[in-house]
Amino acid sequence: MQQKNIEVCFSPALIDNYDIKDKNVVLIDVLRATSTICTAFAWGIKEIIPVASEEEAQAYKTKGFIVAGERDGKVLSFADLGNSPFNFMNDKIKDQSIVFCTTNGTKAINAAKNALRLVVGSYLNFSSVANYLEKDNHDALLLCSGWKNKFSIEDMLFAGSLCYRLIARKYFQTDDDAAIVSVDMWNNAKNDLLKYVDKSDHCKRLKKLGYNEDIEYCHTFDTTDTLPVFTENKIIDTNENI
Amino acid sequence: MQQKNIEVCFSPALIDNYDIKDKNVVLIDVLRATSTICTAFAWGIKEIIPVASEEEAQAYKTKGFIVAGERDGKVLSFADLGNSPFNFMNDKIKDQSIVFCTTNGTKAINAAKNALRLVVGSYLNFSSVANYLEKDNHDALLLCSGWKNKFSIEDMLFAGSLCYRLIARKYFQTDDDAAIVSVDMWNNAKNDLLKYVDKSDHCKRLKKLGYNEDIEYCHTFDTTDTLPVFTENKIIDTNENI
Repeated sequence: MQQKNIEVCFSPALIDNYDIKDKNVVLIDVLRATSTICTAFAWGIKEIIPVASEEEAQAYKTKGFIVAGERDGKVLSFADLGNSPFNFMNDKIKDQSIVFCTTNGTKAINAAKNALRLVVGSYLNFSSVANYLEKDNHDALLLCSGWKNKFSIEDMLFAGSLCYRLIARKYFQTDDDAAIVSVDMWNNAKNDLLKYVDKSDHCKRLKKLGYNEDIEYCHTFDTTDTLPVFTENKIIDTNENI
Repeated sequence: MQQKNIEVCFSPALIDNYDIKDKNVVLIDVLRATSTICTAFAWGIKEIIPVASEEEAQAYKTKGFIVAGERDGKVLSFADLGNSPFNFMNDKIKDQSIVFCTTNGTKAINAAKNALRLVVGSYLNFSSVANYLEKDNHDALLLCSGWKNKFSIEDMLFAGSLCYRLIARKYFQTDDDAAIVSVDMWNNAKNDLLKYVDKSDHCKRLKKLGYNEDIEYCHTFDTTDTLPVFTENKIIDTNENI
């Protein structure tokens, strides 16, 4: 078996240093955009329209769309839903198109638009993403959204968990410093993941806002087999088609 | 004692996300620019003129300056010296002004020009840098040069070693995810630093070019008490003045 290459990018602001047009890019924003997107598809949403600015989100709202959105972890005043996965555990969202505005996730989606395929990854759909990357023939880049373009612990740990599996099963290899360090950090943290994540700036911020349950939920493996993929300015679930 | 804040930035391309005008910034390019700069001052050089492009370096050469420089780890054809610290262990450089062109280091110097003070850090002058940061009243940002704007293991480990000391001695504290991870990685690596650094892409590259001794030398603590600082487009040694 020809081993594919895997790399990790710690910030959307660094994406231009990678040639991604022939790579699967996995978008990671564990707290909470990509976890929430996976939850939304698990609850039967039709599609997500990601937007980067409040203004865009508001324009869609005026046209009658359901809007989910936050800035700095707080729900936007005009939005119907926040960025908490628990907001999407609701039968009313089934078969709906939802506009999604987030602090970090949407910026990263835009940064990685030129990827061969842009897949949404979280612990919730871990095996679904891993299986896809193993079966597909292309190299992979794991793109951490971070916080306002800065490095974040929780995204690195997820990247490390995914690299660890893909390399251990010999589908992938890496020479990439960021991937090597991510795997080592995953090995440091995996026996008490939530305790380790608790050190992160983002956890402290979410806890101050009362989102303790979100943190635990967003670190649960394999609650869904969705495989959301960015295509033609929308995110759709492609799992059935692969 | 009021604890100061310390942060770590993993790439010059991310520096714009930090407000550095009231901070001491420590420039880190362990393999090899900042190690070589410290060595040059330990051997009595008067000043270094850092330049980012080959063209600038060549213009200085035409004017009669001694030029040191490399691209991708290889000595520039017109340069008098390379980027190896061993090139500077030479009495002929005493009291000279030397033009220095490097792949990564110079870019990072330019990125951090607006810092309150831009200090050159390496294992070779570890205690000198740590003592300065402890005595001074300002927050600190440790800026890793990386490799072509990508994250690099060896710079992160040095940042981790410096954070570890400054936090352990209670002069500094941190809420910064990158600093927290750097300290953890330092704790993983410190008992066999060279073995860990051997995993890095940069080490593999330097070993291919035959620079094995450089790697070991650049990971030696406290061979000099120099404290090179960037000032008015030059780097000078300020240790005597502090």
